[in-house]
Amino acid sequence: MATGIRWISGGVTAAHGFRASGVSAGIKRLRKPDLALVVADEPATAAAVFTTNRILAAPVLISRHRLRSGTARAVLINSGCANCLTGAAGTQDALTVSRAAARELGVAERHVLLASTGVIGRRLPVRRIVRAIPRLVQRLSRGHHTAAAEAILTTDAQVKEAAAEALIGGRVCRVGGMAKGAGMIAPSMATMLCVITTDVAIAPALLRALLQQATERTFNRISVDGEMSTNDTVFVLASGASGVTVRRGTPSGRIVAEMLEMVSRRLAHLIVDDGEGATQMAEIRVVGARTAREAQACARQVANSPLVKTMLAGGDPNVGRIAAAVGASPARFDPQKLEVFIGHQRVIAGGAALRFTKAAFRELLAHPQVEMLIRLHAGGAEGRMLTCDLTEEYVRINARYTT
Amino acid sequence: MATGIRWISGGVTAAHGFRASGVSAGIKRLRKPDLALVVADEPATAAAVFTTNRILAAPVLISRHRLRSGTARAVLINSGCANCLTGAAGTQDALTVSRAAARELGVAERHVLLASTGVIGRRLPVRRIVRAIPRLVQRLSRGHHTAAAEAILTTDAQVKEAAAEALIGGRVCRVGGMAKGAGMIAPSMATMLCVITTDVAIAPALLRALLQQATERTFNRISVDGEMSTNDTVFVLASGASGVTVRRGTPSGRIVAEMLEMVSRRLAHLIVDDGEGATQMAEIRVVGARTAREAQACARQVANSPLVKTMLAGGDPNVGRIAAAVGASPARFDPQKLEVFIGHQRVIAGGAALRFTKAAFRELLAHPQVEMLIRLHAGGAEGRMLTCDLTEEYVRINARYTT
Repeated sequence: MATGIRWISGGVTAAHGFRASGVSAGIKRLRKPDLALVVADEPATAAAVFTTNRILAAPVLISRHRLRSGTARAVLINSGCANCLTGAAGTQDALTVSRAAARELGVAERHVLLASTGVIGRRLPVRRIVRAIPRLVQRLSRGHHTAAAEAILTTDAQVKEAAAEALIGGRVCRVGGMAKGAGMIAPSMATMLCVITTDVAIAPALLRALLQQATERTFNRISVDGEMSTNDTVFVLASGASGVTVRRGTPSGRIVAEMLEMVSRRLAHLIVDDGEGATQMAEIRVVGARTAREAQACARQVANSPLVKTMLAGGDPNVGRIAAAVGASPARFDPQKLEVFIGHQRVIAGGAALRFTKAAFRELLAHPQVEMLIRLHAGGAEGRMLTCDLTEEYVRINARYTT
Repeated sequence: MATGIRWISGGVTAAHGFRASGVSAGIKRLRKPDLALVVADEPATAAAVFTTNRILAAPVLISRHRLRSGTARAVLINSGCANCLTGAAGTQDALTVSRAAARELGVAERHVLLASTGVIGRRLPVRRIVRAIPRLVQRLSRGHHTAAAEAILTTDAQVKEAAAEALIGGRVCRVGGMAKGAGMIAPSMATMLCVITTDVAIAPALLRALLQQATERTFNRISVDGEMSTNDTVFVLASGASGVTVRRGTPSGRIVAEMLEMVSRRLAHLIVDDGEGATQMAEIRVVGARTAREAQACARQVANSPLVKTMLAGGDPNVGRIAAAVGASPARFDPQKLEVFIGHQRVIAGGAALRFTKAAFRELLAHPQVEMLIRLHAGGAEGRMLTCDLTEEYVRINARYTT
């Protein structure tokens, strides 16, 4: 961690200038919280990173369009329904709820951003959401960040929040956020959603660049099941309430970039940790690749391999599966030079697998998060991915999602 | 099926000029068959397609080298040990067993091809194999094709054999083969192995071209878990015993190409049908893509999607997962035009998912093999993949493989 940055408690309202709330609108059964709102006291600078899936949910299309202005006041998120594959009617539904929120908040409709997560292909229960919006707005408060973080969850077991602060020019600046994931997968492509806020003042283009960099290094490097949702969205809003203005290439810019990356990394970590059915996390680090692209593709291939993931689940000393996934990736290397470590223990060396008893191998995996280091000895580039194991529980959850 | 080609019973010795056998050499526990031999009575024209994994097992490296001559007499295959990631010692082990087989058969060592399947990273039990070779050679017979097909299995539940014949110029010509798969995955990358034989006479270059085409259209279009093994190998041997010589671009060449593809397709089908833990097969057909490459990549993305595969396992009416996988693929298309059918029933139309009750959806899936047709409406190219569902049983098998 860079000098001067420290973790603080809190979430999407840790930065000044934001309030949040979460209620049950009756989208999910059993009165579970399913509608969240994050509001900036004043128009905020805003940016986002969206899924690269060609099938885009209605809220993604609308938010992408509205973010061209670089300004937003509110983010309205529902869980329980992805509002995707819902055609023109789905777009109308999304516009109706955003209009209701804008009216209740007294802000311009174009300043309301949207996100949805849940089952694909079902219409949004618009009337229930519109009916819940006054209550949602009444409950807005800095203290209700966890209620908001709870309302965006689907199959997640845990609320995901993180916040950090640093002194910049003698003033306290903060970055905080909330996320949901649970597999980037579950509810018919569970969707990774995240809202990050900060109280620095910053130009939209720089905010977008910092968010892209942080996302590339954190959310884009996690794998629960290798799936890409139609609704994945990371929003960032900057209020300027700290009184600190951040510019590109300055020390303050670097501090904010680092805080953004730290908060994103912690949220990404919480998503993998909460992967559906996951019992074991692993960080895959590839070093000595010819190019950064090959290093990252290699780390991704290993992180997404069902055989490596079931090996982690079973504690089975089947390290050849790691080598086979490395070999199946686009990375170029000499198989005779391949080395793989789990923790400090070398498990593959000189093109040959070392043998372990099941007990000794289980010992290597006896940490909530293991590091798997893959040395290609082909160049100087590195890549990394965070992954989790694949258990019978994952299949159980996903074979019965909608019902 | 083209006129004149018909299925016959039999396997790798259905074509004239070949004998086979299978015994237990004690590589696997419980005296299961684990060593197979296929022998041509005279030097045969031979070709192969190997895995594109960068990590190659010792038998793959040796066979690839020996096949440069285009001639072979025997294929020696063991299950229970992949002889991969075994370094220089693994190469020596493979050479020792091939030398023993060559000596016992009285053929040139360079005419013995090798394949291994099983756990990666363990040394081959050379002495046991060498000790079993005389018995294996004694048992060689045209009638022992199923013993050979059984000895190459790993986690497979079923023996996989297929054979076809056709009249060419008034003479009967045959193609037959055996395969193992069980996931292209299981035993630390279960490996897909296949040996095909034919009794036509054919030049090595044409035989290689026909095998590549058949493999591209069959074995390369199946997915159990999307994994690529370090040992995948498809061999073909042509004895010429039918007295028919086949040349490129002739009607007889087309008949042999078709027989080769039919036998390969049936064996590929048997592999998916026997996928680890699989209970449901699905053929994914993509039509209307801009290019054949995009069509195939799109079919592959859907076939490999854990969410689509768990949907098939659970009979969950979660058709949005299909669209999300299509959208995540490299195929370019207008989401508003996307149509998806399961069997004859349209499930996605005009960018919107149609709703089904669980009972109605289960009805759609109430066939051992369903067809999933994806219409992109972006061009004229097609692609297809055969896949199976992902069940808890798959995870159970793969979390405990070596033990």
